[in-house]
Amino acid sequence: MAAIVLKRTGQKMPLVGFGLWKVTKSTCADTVYEAIKAGYRLLDGAGDYGNEKEAGEGVRRAIQEGIVKREELFITSKARSSLDRSQLSQHLIGLDSCGILSMHMTMSNYFDLFLVHFPIALQYVDPAHRYPPEWFDDNGVVRVQNTPMQETWRAMEELVDEGHAKNIGLSNCNGALILDVLRYARIEPQVLQVELHPYLTQDALIDLAKTLGIAVTAYSSFGPQGYVELSMDKGAPSLMSHDAIVKVAQKHGKTPAQVLLRWATQRGIAVVPKSNSAQRLKENLRCDTFDLSEDEIKSISALNMNLRLNNPAEIDARLAIFA
Amino acid sequence: MAAIVLKRTGQKMPLVGFGLWKVTKSTCADTVYEAIKAGYRLLDGAGDYGNEKEAGEGVRRAIQEGIVKREELFITSKARSSLDRSQLSQHLIGLDSCGILSMHMTMSNYFDLFLVHFPIALQYVDPAHRYPPEWFDDNGVVRVQNTPMQETWRAMEELVDEGHAKNIGLSNCNGALILDVLRYARIEPQVLQVELHPYLTQDALIDLAKTLGIAVTAYSSFGPQGYVELSMDKGAPSLMSHDAIVKVAQKHGKTPAQVLLRWATQRGIAVVPKSNSAQRLKENLRCDTFDLSEDEIKSISALNMNLRLNNPAEIDARLAIFA
Repeated sequence: MAAIVLKRTGQKMPLVGFGLWKVTKSTCADTVYEAIKAGYRLLDGAGDYGNEKEAGEGVRRAIQEGIVKREELFITSKARSSLDRSQLSQHLIGLDSCGILSMHMTMSNYFDLFLVHFPIALQYVDPAHRYPPEWFDDNGVVRVQNTPMQETWRAMEELVDEGHAKNIGLSNCNGALILDVLRYARIEPQVLQVELHPYLTQDALIDLAKTLGIAVTAYSSFGPQGYVELSMDKGAPSLMSHDAIVKVAQKHGKTPAQVLLRWATQRGIAVVPKSNSAQRLKENLRCDTFDLSEDEIKSISALNMNLRLNNPAEIDARLAIFA
Repeated sequence: MAAIVLKRTGQKMPLVGFGLWKVTKSTCADTVYEAIKAGYRLLDGAGDYGNEKEAGEGVRRAIQEGIVKREELFITSKARSSLDRSQLSQHLIGLDSCGILSMHMTMSNYFDLFLVHFPIALQYVDPAHRYPPEWFDDNGVVRVQNTPMQETWRAMEELVDEGHAKNIGLSNCNGALILDVLRYARIEPQVLQVELHPYLTQDALIDLAKTLGIAVTAYSSFGPQGYVELSMDKGAPSLMSHDAIVKVAQKHGKTPAQVLLRWATQRGIAVVPKSNSAQRLKENLRCDTFDLSEDEIKSISALNMNLRLNNPAEIDARLAIFA
């Protein structure tokens, strides 16, 4: 399976993974089990997704049945926001004591990749009190705390020191902040995970990551599609049925989803699509069985309109990390 | 004169100032003297502009002739890039010993505002060796150093403690980094100076600054105009002769320059235009003698195309602070 070699550890990160965002809790264990059976080796989870325990159950079942070994899997998780060292420990211990961390603890006690989910410092929420922590407190208020990214990054580095994470990285960060992290990092970020689709091509950020030797994972590869159910699609026309995508898909005898994924993976950008359908699950994984022409990639990139669908500024004006 | 009240000190920062970028060394003293005579009270300088000594001479002459008192002026300068404490001291001492810092030292030994010019850490250059420091070393190579913004900000705060700066702020920074600075700031940034014109409206960043109570200064208010001589205008049509601007200017009996400045100042955004012509110097200062309608402001803002003219990534890929 196509993979990106991470600089620091030499570990291979699969180019196509399975994303756990919005995977329903009740079906999550089965979905993960089926994804592994279908050939997925990278699972992209996060504390914020609220399904870590169930995802872990699916993984455990697959391992117990001998379908896969832990070391053949690449498991990603994310800390909800900037936490300091004690909060990060408390977070892991808290998840563990609630039985939530089975994805982590039952599997050799490490993540292959652990990311700072957003460069936002929200007040710490004990998993025993509320899991997932969500953006709002019990009274519907967003509460920030003053934990600088440098403190969070130190905590992330200690996770590597202690063997809890093989690689660490950033998500939802942009140029100036990434460059600042690199100035104080003892262990450099290996991966940057950002929203990336033809409506938000982020060319400058991709170029910077390449220059810095940081692997990029695209999330929301299907654009507005993933946000319709959350009423966050901003009325943008679907990419799945967009003429420019459908035309290319038909030419290659592929699905629009496969074209959208290949648009990223062909340029060495990893993707983490999710699907509830077994058929599409397989199709998405096989998105590297064909190549787009350079002109096709360009014509798809021309759809760019800097449309950002996941923007915390819409939750609270103080969270405008993309301003 | 219209001004913005800075939160921390209550000091008034004039809405219209005189920008020293690209003011020729040989004429700089006279230009500054004339600007003060014409009524300018804010002078926006920087180590990078290479004309600090001459600007200081113009200021000194105006003070000596009794045209203005030092305390009636608002003088801004900027540290070329992220420096640590000893480098910032060395920078000030170095400038002083070269006679370059007359703008600073001859005028009560303080700046009203001192900004981090770019969130970029280039290797320190002793002013005795090369002034201005420029982006490249003697061999034409860009050399970065690992000084985190937090260390630079500590040095900036000490400038306030020691009375060298009344206010400190940031320039060329975006949302995520500003929010991170606020997490560790003992003395908060009071001003954010960024490129801002109808081709780059930066609405989200303006909103964030408002939310955070940080005053905004727009630079390059005339857009491509200021970059033509540097061949950095990117072929964008002039705003000065743009139909949308000219139409509004004619309606109000004003110059396009006055409309472009008013587009910012009417929304409480400070501007620092420069001009070599005495006539335009006065016109620019009088840009608040009329009001645009809301529709006019909107129609001008509609020219936005996220066109960034001052982008260090074009100098070196590792400097992609706006990615």
